[in-house]
Amino acid sequence: MNSNVDAIAKELLAGNRRALGRAISLVENGGADATSLVHELYSHTGKAHIIGVTGSPGVGKSTLVDALITECRKEDLKVAVLAVDPSSPFTGGAILGDRIRMQGHTLDRNVFIRSMANRGHQGGVSLATYDAIRMLEASGYQVIIIETVGVGQSELAIAQHADTTILVLMPGSGDDIQAIKSGIMEIGDIFVVNKGDLPGANKSASEITASLELNHFQTSWRPPVVLAIAETGQGIDQLWQAAKEHKKFLTDENLLDKRRSLRIRAELSEIVADIARRNLQGSMDSEAVRKILSQIVNREVDPHTAAINLLPGLLSSATARS
Amino acid sequence: MNSNVDAIAKELLAGNRRALGRAISLVENGGADATSLVHELYSHTGKAHIIGVTGSPGVGKSTLVDALITECRKEDLKVAVLAVDPSSPFTGGAILGDRIRMQGHTLDRNVFIRSMANRGHQGGVSLATYDAIRMLEASGYQVIIIETVGVGQSELAIAQHADTTILVLMPGSGDDIQAIKSGIMEIGDIFVVNKGDLPGANKSASEITASLELNHFQTSWRPPVVLAIAETGQGIDQLWQAAKEHKKFLTDENLLDKRRSLRIRAELSEIVADIARRNLQGSMDSEAVRKILSQIVNREVDPHTAAINLLPGLLSSATARS
Repeated sequence: MNSNVDAIAKELLAGNRRALGRAISLVENGGADATSLVHELYSHTGKAHIIGVTGSPGVGKSTLVDALITECRKEDLKVAVLAVDPSSPFTGGAILGDRIRMQGHTLDRNVFIRSMANRGHQGGVSLATYDAIRMLEASGYQVIIIETVGVGQSELAIAQHADTTILVLMPGSGDDIQAIKSGIMEIGDIFVVNKGDLPGANKSASEITASLELNHFQTSWRPPVVLAIAETGQGIDQLWQAAKEHKKFLTDENLLDKRRSLRIRAELSEIVADIARRNLQGSMDSEAVRKILSQIVNREVDPHTAAINLLPGLLSSATARS
Repeated sequence: MNSNVDAIAKELLAGNRRALGRAISLVENGGADATSLVHELYSHTGKAHIIGVTGSPGVGKSTLVDALITECRKEDLKVAVLAVDPSSPFTGGAILGDRIRMQGHTLDRNVFIRSMANRGHQGGVSLATYDAIRMLEASGYQVIIIETVGVGQSELAIAQHADTTILVLMPGSGDDIQAIKSGIMEIGDIFVVNKGDLPGANKSASEITASLELNHFQTSWRPPVVLAIAETGQGIDQLWQAAKEHKKFLTDENLLDKRRSLRIRAELSEIVADIARRNLQGSMDSEAVRKILSQIVNREVDPHTAAINLLPGLLSSATARS
C-alpha cells in the first residue's frame, strides 16, 4: 500500500470528513488504490443500517430522504446519503438540484451527503457504491441511505445494495399500477405513498396493500405501506420506525447475513467481470489482440470464439480494477 | 452444433422470418446455442447499413423510424428495426405502445420489427443486440435501425452499435440545450429537430448548428441538422439522404472498418466480462467459492482480494455465455 492511501485510511477511521471524501473519490476511480483502501478498512465495515430509497423521478425521494435524516439526527445517529445515478448524463443536473433541498443539514458534521455518477464503464457505479458504503461504515456512519434517481434495472440493482429497500410512489402517477404490474413490488421492504395530501392517496395505499396481500412472500415480513407528506414531515416518524423494525426483523430471523451474502455474490460476479474487462482493455494493443481484432473485422473469426481463445492469456496476470 | 441450431441457421439464411425470430430469441438468451449460431452465420454478416436512432422519450423517435422505413421501402430495401430498452421494467409498456404506430408495415414481408429488453444481467441486452444485428444481416436485411428508448449511458452505448447515429431532439424541450451542455453532441452523425412545426423549431436548429460549428471534429464529416415533422413525413427524405451520404462518407474515407473495429473492441470486452461473470455464477455452489463467501461475510477477506484469488480457477474452464 502506498503511504498516501495509508494516511487516508487512518484519518478516515478517525472520522475526518475530508479523508472520507477523498476515499470515496478513490473508490469511484477504481484501480490499485481503491483495492488497497478496501483491503485496509474491510474489517471495520458491516455495522451500518443500509437503507435504499428508490422510485420514479418526481415522487419526492430527496425530500423524503431529507426528512429521514432529521429523524436519524433526533436519535443522534451519524447518517450518510449516497445519491447514485447509474445511467444518464441528462439527469446530472436534476441530481444536483435535488441535493440543494438537503442543505438544511450541510452544517451538521454528523451528516454526509455525496452524489455518485457513472464514470463511464458498465458496472462501474455499482461496484463503486459497494466500496463507498464501506468507506462510510469505516468512518463511523450508522445509517447509510442509498438514493437512486430512477427505477430502471440498474437503479433497482443499486437499491438492493441495501438491507432495507424503501419504494416511494405517489398517487395518481400510475406508478402504483405499474409497480404492481411489473413485479417491482418484490423489491420493496417498505412502501411509501408520498404526497399523501393529493387526491387518490388513500386509494393508492389500499391498492398497494391489497396487491401485497396477494403476493407469496419468502419470509414472514409483510411490507408496511406508509402514507406520508415528506414536505411537512408527516408520516416520516412512522417510516423510520418501520425501517428500524425491518432491520430488527432481519437480525432476529438471521436474515441479515443471508441477505448480505447474496449481495456479496452479486458483487463478486461484477468484480471478476470488471477484472476481465479491464485486463482485455489493457492488452488491446498487444500483438495477439490486434491480430484477433483484424480477424474478426475480416469475418474470419467470430467474437465469441475469439474471446474464448483470448481468455486464458488475459487472466493469468489478473489484478483487480487496475 | 446441435441439429436444431443448424436448421434455424439454414432457414434464416433462406430468409425465413420465423427462423429469424427464433434465432433472435436464442441470442437474447445467450448460452451455447447463441454462440453456435453466431459462429455458423458470422461470415454472412457485415453488409447492412446499421442506423442508430436515439433521443429522449416523447421526441417522436418511433414515428420517425416509421417514416424512415417508408423511405427504405421506396428503394425496395429490406429493413429491420430493433427497439432496445436497456434498463427499465417501467417503460416496457411504452415500448409496446410505440410499436403499434409502426403497424402500417406489419403486412410487408420485407420489414421486420422486434423489441429487445434487458433479461436481467448487466451487459445482456447490449451483447444480445450485437448478435441480433448479425442474425438480421445473415437473413438479408440491408438497413437495420436500432431504436433506443432513452438517452442514458446504456442507450448511448447501444446507439453506438450503429454505423450512423441519428440524435432526435424537439424544440422547446430543453433537450437541445442539455445535449449541447452534456457533450452528447459528439455521438450524433446526424441531428433531427423533430416536430418542426412547433414554435422555436428554427431557433433550436440554428443553435444546434452553431454549437456543432464550435466542435472540433475527428473527421471531416459535418453533422447535418435536419428539420422534420415525422408525423407528416416532412424532411424524412432529406434525413434518409443524409444517412446514405454518411455511410458513403465512411466507406470513401475508409472509416467504416475503423468504426466497426472500435465496436468489436467494446464487444470483446463485454464478452470476456460476461464469461467471467457467468463462470463465477456457475460455480457459486462449489466448495472453494462457498468458503470464500463465508470468509467475506465474516470480514476475514475483502471481496477484491477474494476475486483475484478466485479468478485463475474460474477461467481455466472458460466457455462463452454458457
